[in-house]
Amino acid sequence: MANENKLQAIIGHCKEYGFVFQSSEIYDGLSAVYDYGQYGAELKKNIRDYWWRSMTQMQDNIVGIDAAIFMHPTVWKASGHVDNFSDPMIDNKDSQKRYRVDHLIEGYAETLDAEAGAAIIKQMELLLEANDFAGLKTLIEDKKINCAISGTCNWTDVRQFNLMFSTEMGSVADEANVVYLRPETAQGIFVNFLNVQKSGRMKIPFGIAQTGKAFRNEIVARGFIFRMREFEQMEMQFFVKPGTQKEWYDYWKETRMKWHLSLGIGADKYKFHDHVKLAHYADMACDIEYDFPMGFKEVEGVHSRTDFDLKQHQQFSGKKLTYFDTEINQHYVPYVIETSIGLDRTVMMILSEAYVEEDLSTEEKQDSRVVLKFPPMLAPIKLAVLPLTKKDGLPELAKDLINDCKTQFKCFYEEKDSIGKRYRRMDALGTPFCVTIDHQTKEDGTVTIRYRDTMLQERIALADVKKLVMEKIAMF
Amino acid sequence: MANENKLQAIIGHCKEYGFVFQSSEIYDGLSAVYDYGQYGAELKKNIRDYWWRSMTQMQDNIVGIDAAIFMHPTVWKASGHVDNFSDPMIDNKDSQKRYRVDHLIEGYAETLDAEAGAAIIKQMELLLEANDFAGLKTLIEDKKINCAISGTCNWTDVRQFNLMFSTEMGSVADEANVVYLRPETAQGIFVNFLNVQKSGRMKIPFGIAQTGKAFRNEIVARGFIFRMREFEQMEMQFFVKPGTQKEWYDYWKETRMKWHLSLGIGADKYKFHDHVKLAHYADMACDIEYDFPMGFKEVEGVHSRTDFDLKQHQQFSGKKLTYFDTEINQHYVPYVIETSIGLDRTVMMILSEAYVEEDLSTEEKQDSRVVLKFPPMLAPIKLAVLPLTKKDGLPELAKDLINDCKTQFKCFYEEKDSIGKRYRRMDALGTPFCVTIDHQTKEDGTVTIRYRDTMLQERIALADVKKLVMEKIAMF
Repeated sequence: MANENKLQAIIGHCKEYGFVFQSSEIYDGLSAVYDYGQYGAELKKNIRDYWWRSMTQMQDNIVGIDAAIFMHPTVWKASGHVDNFSDPMIDNKDSQKRYRVDHLIEGYAETLDAEAGAAIIKQMELLLEANDFAGLKTLIEDKKINCAISGTCNWTDVRQFNLMFSTEMGSVADEANVVYLRPETAQGIFVNFLNVQKSGRMKIPFGIAQTGKAFRNEIVARGFIFRMREFEQMEMQFFVKPGTQKEWYDYWKETRMKWHLSLGIGADKYKFHDHVKLAHYADMACDIEYDFPMGFKEVEGVHSRTDFDLKQHQQFSGKKLTYFDTEINQHYVPYVIETSIGLDRTVMMILSEAYVEEDLSTEEKQDSRVVLKFPPMLAPIKLAVLPLTKKDGLPELAKDLINDCKTQFKCFYEEKDSIGKRYRRMDALGTPFCVTIDHQTKEDGTVTIRYRDTMLQERIALADVKKLVMEKIAMF
Repeated sequence: MANENKLQAIIGHCKEYGFVFQSSEIYDGLSAVYDYGQYGAELKKNIRDYWWRSMTQMQDNIVGIDAAIFMHPTVWKASGHVDNFSDPMIDNKDSQKRYRVDHLIEGYAETLDAEAGAAIIKQMELLLEANDFAGLKTLIEDKKINCAISGTCNWTDVRQFNLMFSTEMGSVADEANVVYLRPETAQGIFVNFLNVQKSGRMKIPFGIAQTGKAFRNEIVARGFIFRMREFEQMEMQFFVKPGTQKEWYDYWKETRMKWHLSLGIGADKYKFHDHVKLAHYADMACDIEYDFPMGFKEVEGVHSRTDFDLKQHQQFSGKKLTYFDTEINQHYVPYVIETSIGLDRTVMMILSEAYVEEDLSTEEKQDSRVVLKFPPMLAPIKLAVLPLTKKDGLPELAKDLINDCKTQFKCFYEEKDSIGKRYRRMDALGTPFCVTIDHQTKEDGTVTIRYRDTMLQERIALADVKKLVMEKIAMF
């Protein structure tokens, strides 16, 4: 399937089967915001749980916190977001339409032949890196890049536009304060560094993990749930002794890649993208890119953030944020290795990987199915229990099995339609195991279990179903 | 312990042991916003998981969704929040200080004797119910209620102040839109009602559950994590046939109370508060109140919301939100029973219930302990494994046990301090089970297990530890 078609097919499937809906759809939607439906919510929750358990429960020296979205506004001064978290924009004076400068120039470059386009992009990147706004405007004017609406080349100066959402807190007029919706969860970890270290008596090296919502007023948000204005991050900050950051950076690059491979995704679907131009806080950084339907894109970042954030918070808060290392009898501000993965992007990665249209045609007839081959531990429904008919006590047997299993995992009961149709619906929802209760069940206590990926069926004892599923869905 | 003291003791304990920190504490905090530390985050997550599994996995006809915080602004017009979600406020002209009218009058009433105070409160409530703002101002002036800062009785008119936070979405000037941070999660369910019903082929009666953040710009937020400006809700909307709402309202009142009692909290700590004055959307409503340190307060609400919300969204969106009932061959807009519980309030309830200061003095010596008697299924750490000494292979045995158990539940390793001190620290964190590895373990494969609540110790086989803990922490 062509990649653009695959993306569209996934979006359609997600809506039809209750994975992802456009936010406020009955009001014609809210741009770049999505809601997770009944199966998407379970899938997302299972991914979040797997990350959380991998990064906290399975680790000796990492704990998780849950900091608020609202933080003191000075946090974002200290972190550099108030001054630097922005994109250069330009307005057309005739249409009043505002553009991101890079998108405007990229759009123009696409109209040229490959070589000329690449030259323009290169020139733009140099100007962006130098923050040369006058140069960017000159480039736009020299190339006569016009506004798509007015058709004119009548532009304002290039200006920075901050990506943080702001609101006002406190109703009492003289206390009203501008606060921001956090653009990343990381700062909630940095400001709590000493609280956690002291109350938890943590010894370096140790990590603090967190999952939660973040918000960015993206100019152009696109790619379904890949880039949203409201999204969820799963971040871990690992505090280390200065000078050891290289070894821990390498460790976390490798460890996080292993986590990705543990999802059953092939190594050929991933690549590291090492950053050449580093952010102001980093001394090493890379992205883990996954081969999405729209190409290789970042799903996770591993960053060596140095002591930048803690030192900034020391300076802006006036509080010491040092650690006393009893092994060397010294106080120091720790260095930090960050692993930062987008939860929604991971959902999209799992969906992209799982979505398969299979041709099942035989000589006799045309046939096909859409199946979501989720890792069983992440599947929204683990087990479907299907009575062959609605009578003869089969529904009761099915419900007994569900009552036994539902304390441990999510089950689904369905008595309508033919067994074949019910199997196909479960394929479309990504349910790894279906059990059919038939008349033989009453006689010998066996059931048919049908496996999603192979479509193979076998008879096993009803009494063994729960244990079999439990083993297959175990995370560790 | 006096109640005010108990609240202060809990707050202090939460900070010292890493349960709850003031948000952005190094910047002197952000009013009425809190962060969950390493043990508070696990406690909160366990409560959320227990609610989620109770309300979705264990139910045949309830599914969960995860709608975004950002919604189309018209949602809040339809729901009534833009027009009605507000508190009457008054400003003192001399101090510029703004007050919630009810708090100002209540503060004055407290300075009077009981009878006179009650009379004023009664008078205020009648005026509030009638939205008689002029009458409220006259009451304040007649009673000569002064501003605490300026000391004058020089007041503005009474005005409504909306409690929703707003922000602007979309950087492109001509598309910028005011959007609100949702003040309740419920509307995310209503606008997705048809999406879920159709994609999930749901049959009435059925429910849609959701957990997530909500935001209210409370004038006076207080009571630790009881009333915060950013908080988390766990809501379920149950869609029923019109005319059957009374039976389902009664069902959910009873079912939710059973859930509370399943936490091991006595029935005497709860009461129902039936609403006499109903909200504009309700035909029956009650609160489930818990006996917090500051008295009986709402932890959950059960509301019969009629068809108000769906009908409003029909009207404002122009989309039909009806259900076709195949049993009676009719289309109708369903009625809704809502159960809405505050997650942070539930954390506070569990902390209040669990926190005990025990006098353990004997004739020989004074002794006491602070213990958090969490239900084992909710405890942040399930099992602590403590080698008696740091040598003789005992740490290795301890770590082997942890490696075996940590795939299933959260463990904690500690080799420092005396065993007695380590037990007490685990009491303070609410860890239900401690296992000590000693020299006898190497000889006969037994360990000492120590139970938090009774402090009783017994020897059991090392090989039985995992199974014992698994049984005790099972949610269902």
